[in-house]
Amino acid sequence: MTSSPDSEPSGFATATAVTTAGNGHYTAVIQPGWDILGAANGGYLLAMPTRALIQATGRQPVTVTGHYLAPGTPGPVVISTEIIKEGRTFTTAAARTLAGERALLAVQGTFGQFDTASDILLQDATAPAMPPADQIPRFRHDPASELPPPFVERLEIRIHPDDTAFAQGKPSGKARMRAWVRLLDDEPVDACALVMAADCLPPTTFNAGLPIAWTPTLELTVHIRAIPRPGWLRLDFATRFVSNGRLEVDGLIWDADDRLVAQSRQIALIPRSS
Amino acid sequence: MTSSPDSEPSGFATATAVTTAGNGHYTAVIQPGWDILGAANGGYLLAMPTRALIQATGRQPVTVTGHYLAPGTPGPVVISTEIIKEGRTFTTAAARTLAGERALLAVQGTFGQFDTASDILLQDATAPAMPPADQIPRFRHDPASELPPPFVERLEIRIHPDDTAFAQGKPSGKARMRAWVRLLDDEPVDACALVMAADCLPPTTFNAGLPIAWTPTLELTVHIRAIPRPGWLRLDFATRFVSNGRLEVDGLIWDADDRLVAQSRQIALIPRSS
Repeated sequence: MTSSPDSEPSGFATATAVTTAGNGHYTAVIQPGWDILGAANGGYLLAMPTRALIQATGRQPVTVTGHYLAPGTPGPVVISTEIIKEGRTFTTAAARTLAGERALLAVQGTFGQFDTASDILLQDATAPAMPPADQIPRFRHDPASELPPPFVERLEIRIHPDDTAFAQGKPSGKARMRAWVRLLDDEPVDACALVMAADCLPPTTFNAGLPIAWTPTLELTVHIRAIPRPGWLRLDFATRFVSNGRLEVDGLIWDADDRLVAQSRQIALIPRSS
Repeated sequence: MTSSPDSEPSGFATATAVTTAGNGHYTAVIQPGWDILGAANGGYLLAMPTRALIQATGRQPVTVTGHYLAPGTPGPVVISTEIIKEGRTFTTAAARTLAGERALLAVQGTFGQFDTASDILLQDATAPAMPPADQIPRFRHDPASELPPPFVERLEIRIHPDDTAFAQGKPSGKARMRAWVRLLDDEPVDACALVMAADCLPPTTFNAGLPIAWTPTLELTVHIRAIPRPGWLRLDFATRFVSNGRLEVDGLIWDADDRLVAQSRQIALIPRSS
């Protein structure tokens, strides 16, 4: 069974739904259960203004950048959108997510259309080699230790066995995290779900053997290349540079046809307490 | 001699100077000679609002994202800045560059301080192996063919010999471009110059043997990790995915002490005429 463990809306589309309030404003609700120790997951938080901007522009996201201002907690938010430039092929737009007076997220992105033709001229990388998804145990919330957080129950994550050793206190030594991921009940993955997926895995640094606990995101940019074909996604996230108090996470997301569907990068902070 | 070939301001600081006009507005001038076939170089164009935001926030750029709206041509521009959130450690802000009524660029970034300590906890990559800079001919403008464009005279670029074969019609087959780069007269490289450098090399696709001419940038994000030590920069730019009408360019910029000082990614368009 892949249904939600409690009574909150299980569907990703429901959990990121936006409702127009006129004049470019939208309302939405940060749902409980999409948090990491109380703060809404960054990818989930970015998916909501992305959905508002899809409605505001009438186009699909090509590249979306979010700057994180404050942690999001369950409850209503208002998303204000602004069309910066509407061109023949692309629309550039901005959005701000506010919980009351508190600004949570500032977003800027360019929206267009996806080529339906699968015209791959260069693909100089391959999807990560993974054991079959059904041979990997699902990555599940542990109510006793609270880690992994309840968020991981909101989707189905099956992490490469080499990359879960951190959970037994034996980090692989390589700042990498690979996984099979799909939405619950095999809900179709749209562009907003790809934005969420770009931040859905445990920190890569958990495997690096570095004294780093959590890594709050300053900025996340997601390039959407294509809407995935039905089936599992494969995620391949890695960090190469931890320096000057910051680290990047580079993400590749592949679909069931071995096509790159999204590429992401975030810059995250190493808190001083780490 | 590394002086400018004509009478326009040679210094990068001069060419990207901004003057406050009050209320968060700044004036600047897109200088002639910083263009690629008439359109101002994207990195140069992003350096100006970055400089305005440094003044507006009183902080240094940690991550800056620009969405390109229209080509910039020589002449005056107005840069309007907005502080989105000023926190204890970071300030998030936006900027728009306008030439008259024409919006050229929308920018969003987070600004903070650079750690002065060189605390590198992980560096899982190395600066590209390059022949010494003085053994590589400078990459120069060819007035006869107009290519490379005059822009390349605004800085000193020495491209890895393996990566210049495209200029003889023999692309290497690898979508990569490595180079030594410094400002003219060895002007110190500040954060704004790193932003410019993140877009200063010929398209990586010139080496891929693909039927792609120019690749206009939709969005460019630059993470500044540190201010470089004096001396040459080494740039290592690569493209792995050309698909669905778009391609990314990933950039690493290293300083003379083999430290990563900036990491960049842009998403660029393959024009339909290509």
